[in-house]
Amino acid sequence: MKVSEVVPVKFVGGKMLILDQSKLPGEEKYLEMETKEDIYVAIKKLKVRGAPAIGVAAAYGLYVSTRHSHAKTLKEFRPEVKEVADYIVKARPTAVNLSWALSRMMDRLDTFNGDVSDAKQMLLSEADKIRVEDENSCHKMGEYGLTLLKPGMGILTHCNAGTLATAKYGTSLAPIYLGTEKNYDFKVFADETRPLLQGARLTAWELTKAGVDVTLICDNMASIVMKNGWIDAVVVGCDRMAANGDGANKIGTSAVAILAKEYGIPFYMFVPTSTIDYDTKTGDDIQIELRDGKEISEMWYKQPMAPQGVKTYNPSFDVTPARYITAVITENGIVRAPYEENLLKLKERTVK
Amino acid sequence: MKVSEVVPVKFVGGKMLILDQSKLPGEEKYLEMETKEDIYVAIKKLKVRGAPAIGVAAAYGLYVSTRHSHAKTLKEFRPEVKEVADYIVKARPTAVNLSWALSRMMDRLDTFNGDVSDAKQMLLSEADKIRVEDENSCHKMGEYGLTLLKPGMGILTHCNAGTLATAKYGTSLAPIYLGTEKNYDFKVFADETRPLLQGARLTAWELTKAGVDVTLICDNMASIVMKNGWIDAVVVGCDRMAANGDGANKIGTSAVAILAKEYGIPFYMFVPTSTIDYDTKTGDDIQIELRDGKEISEMWYKQPMAPQGVKTYNPSFDVTPARYITAVITENGIVRAPYEENLLKLKERTVK
Repeated sequence: MKVSEVVPVKFVGGKMLILDQSKLPGEEKYLEMETKEDIYVAIKKLKVRGAPAIGVAAAYGLYVSTRHSHAKTLKEFRPEVKEVADYIVKARPTAVNLSWALSRMMDRLDTFNGDVSDAKQMLLSEADKIRVEDENSCHKMGEYGLTLLKPGMGILTHCNAGTLATAKYGTSLAPIYLGTEKNYDFKVFADETRPLLQGARLTAWELTKAGVDVTLICDNMASIVMKNGWIDAVVVGCDRMAANGDGANKIGTSAVAILAKEYGIPFYMFVPTSTIDYDTKTGDDIQIELRDGKEISEMWYKQPMAPQGVKTYNPSFDVTPARYITAVITENGIVRAPYEENLLKLKERTVK
Repeated sequence: MKVSEVVPVKFVGGKMLILDQSKLPGEEKYLEMETKEDIYVAIKKLKVRGAPAIGVAAAYGLYVSTRHSHAKTLKEFRPEVKEVADYIVKARPTAVNLSWALSRMMDRLDTFNGDVSDAKQMLLSEADKIRVEDENSCHKMGEYGLTLLKPGMGILTHCNAGTLATAKYGTSLAPIYLGTEKNYDFKVFADETRPLLQGARLTAWELTKAGVDVTLICDNMASIVMKNGWIDAVVVGCDRMAANGDGANKIGTSAVAILAKEYGIPFYMFVPTSTIDYDTKTGDDIQIELRDGKEISEMWYKQPMAPQGVKTYNPSFDVTPARYITAVITENGIVRAPYEENLLKLKERTVK
């Protein structure tokens, strides 16, 4: 048993390839990226999604779409690259990792000394670094997470915080992959995660590919699988954590947390330190994105599944209050309550 | 504002009509029922669903499919009717109301004295009685339920326990209809209720038709609407209640109950007394029906939404423990904890 070779973004044999996640789970198709337009469309159309994976795609994308530049000097080359970066960043303006990765690449280029050919090589190796750093970070989260799990455990997860969303391993799925490498024989339950079905389409797919025992359930079945005694731990990702430990994640996460508490099951949130927003005091200060109600009433379906024009409410995220979170797992260690104090300590410890 | 004229089964101008619920919400189409095969198919194919509505359909169905009998004597007529009843009852063998309604019709016929023409008339009026009794029972549940609600309240419901499932008014939706007649101006939130989407297809549809303010949400959004302060009460139906007050209802109901408790919101279960099974001691003794996993992974969708062959778990119901139920609303009054004691008192009171 080994971790799946699936990765959302690859650079092999001089080619940049993106796994087209919009075609999953029906079709496993890699798209070659050659131009800035290819990258823009891939990010915009969610062919690659998940903050870290988008960052990796943008970094390689900046390299491949400028490597054929005819610029003779760095002075000519830099503005060309800058123009491409400014274009790609618009694909998903709210994706923090997208602008972060592109800025990092530009910063390196701005301070680089050498010829254009070396500069191109530097961009590729910086993209490699971004990918490897994310992979290492996920691997560490997996190692820390695995200390909380035991062989044979039943594990519930919500949405997709897996390999497909990162460079590799994922955040909340990382301990499942590392455990599987050690024959831990987990029984994973994946919430389908309405309305966009990331659990059914992505989590169930990538775990199946990696040979993990996964059972797909509807979101409203989390209670009965817990009641049945099948769940020993819940693992979820995090989109943004406030300074007090309240964590915003995919809609429905807070319900899973409340159920876990009621059934006495530990609830673990996997939070890359870059996701902790110390300037946001509590979860109440996190703005919740509202999306098109047609995702609920029409999308995916053969025919509309609700009365035409029905009112809908379609929030993308909800906030899980810190009191329901048994532990926060980061790449720099595990944090437990009191979160406000201990998240600060984590920051101080890692800055040093 | 008046309650919708929608009813699932009508007998008008000598014609029996069934609203084809399998076509909702896209199409509102009434099917005329003339033969026992019509009735059988309508029940089997869920064109009419909901225990009380099935009972009403079976009763009228027994009448319309025997009214053209050429039998000259009751002795000839009875076995003909019996044969039809024995045929229709097989359409959904586990539906208690189906066999109950047909047995009641047959019992009346067995003790009837008169000619065949009078017997046919008696069958029609017995079917009318079954319909009217159910409508009255739902109306009473609505009146009792309404004493627990106040104008302007936000109300969450799960699945469909409405007009479409009964003769009229429904069980848990009855107070919403009665309140709407009094301009109570409720704000209703309907869980879509995966995998079969009864909330989206049926509840949202019938409430919209009746001019009720309804907002459709995914099941995993119940937590955030409660957190937002939008929900003052939860109303749900019940498929079977044990003697201790544990209630089996559509999958996901127990999660809604746990969330309601956590957010301090009253959780009301609407339970026709015929649904209370005093021979079943606790919810643990209630068998949970498992259904085809394709309902989760494929049904409704333009294409399969999960990896082919993925394992699924698809229970139709879950049990909400009595401790989460604020009150049980029956047609004979409201029952509160301790349920074992008070459900017995209800029985004794109503038998007298």
